[in-house]
Amino acid sequence: MSDSVRVLGIDPGFGTVGYGLIEARSSKVNLITYGAIRTEAREPIPERLIKIYDALEEIIRNYAPHESAVEELFFFRNVTTAIQVGEARGAILLVLRRLSIPIFEYTPHQVKKSVTGYGKAEKGQIQRTLKTYLAMTETPKPDDAADALAVAWCHITSRRFPGGVGQ
Amino acid sequence: MSDSVRVLGIDPGFGTVGYGLIEARSSKVNLITYGAIRTEAREPIPERLIKIYDALEEIIRNYAPHESAVEELFFFRNVTTAIQVGEARGAILLVLRRLSIPIFEYTPHQVKKSVTGYGKAEKGQIQRTLKTYLAMTETPKPDDAADALAVAWCHITSRRFPGGVGQ
Repeated sequence: MSDSVRVLGIDPGFGTVGYGLIEARSSKVNLITYGAIRTEAREPIPERLIKIYDALEEIIRNYAPHESAVEELFFFRNVTTAIQVGEARGAILLVLRRLSIPIFEYTPHQVKKSVTGYGKAEKGQIQRTLKTYLAMTETPKPDDAADALAVAWCHITSRRFPGGVGQ
Repeated sequence: MSDSVRVLGIDPGFGTVGYGLIEARSSKVNLITYGAIRTEAREPIPERLIKIYDALEEIIRNYAPHESAVEELFFFRNVTTAIQVGEARGAILLVLRRLSIPIFEYTPHQVKKSVTGYGKAEKGQIQRTLKTYLAMTETPKPDDAADALAVAWCHITSRRFPGGVGQ
């Protein structure tokens, strides 16, 4: 790989999957794009999984990321939510693996720490910090897209400073 | 569709995904095949999801089922298990949907009731009943494969007697 690396960050969810692409080139990190894949609650689950899979496939084909960073989730309102987010994660991991994009996973604590230096930082603080780092004119929205940019940022940091992203 | 229907039953799980194929032709139900897809706990999750996806794709291409019946699961030891089974379900639902196999889902209660007439039947009773129904010389093993045959049986029954499979 050259001195530049393009990372696709993903915040897995069922109704909304956030994504964010950033590129590190020598000492600079640039924002490429970000957004959210939304699926409708009234649609059958297999249909929603296909939409997530196909949308990510298109993003990967359009932007050719070298690596991906996926947020690991541990806490859920209930078991039904955990299964549904698991299903979405299954579709996400499958498309990444099938398109041969290396997958790196980070906990919310690691992500928060790498962006703000503090593992329990609040959402607003993370979003403001990202906005500054990535020279954005607006705070990244929705939250899922901001979370995706944050996990991509976390991966770039850990690539630069291996071992520097603690638990 | 002719008067015959071939159903692929699936018992979703992470370490083991059970499958069972049965065919209903006029008044007779025949066993086609059954087994289990196993993945290793030491392998990365995306690798395991690809194995599940690819193995099911091969089974579908080899046996050309008309419809599929998937067991819905609600109870898990903990949230981590729920997420992992959700990930496997995501891979299973994706391959079925991508290969255009209609998906029907049944609760464990519906499955047990359709096989034995009793929604709280024990595993051994279900396996013995299935063995008789499908004229098998041995009790279906492993449990996951037996569960997959049972959900396929449940779907065949509900096709024949719509509304007959209560909650």
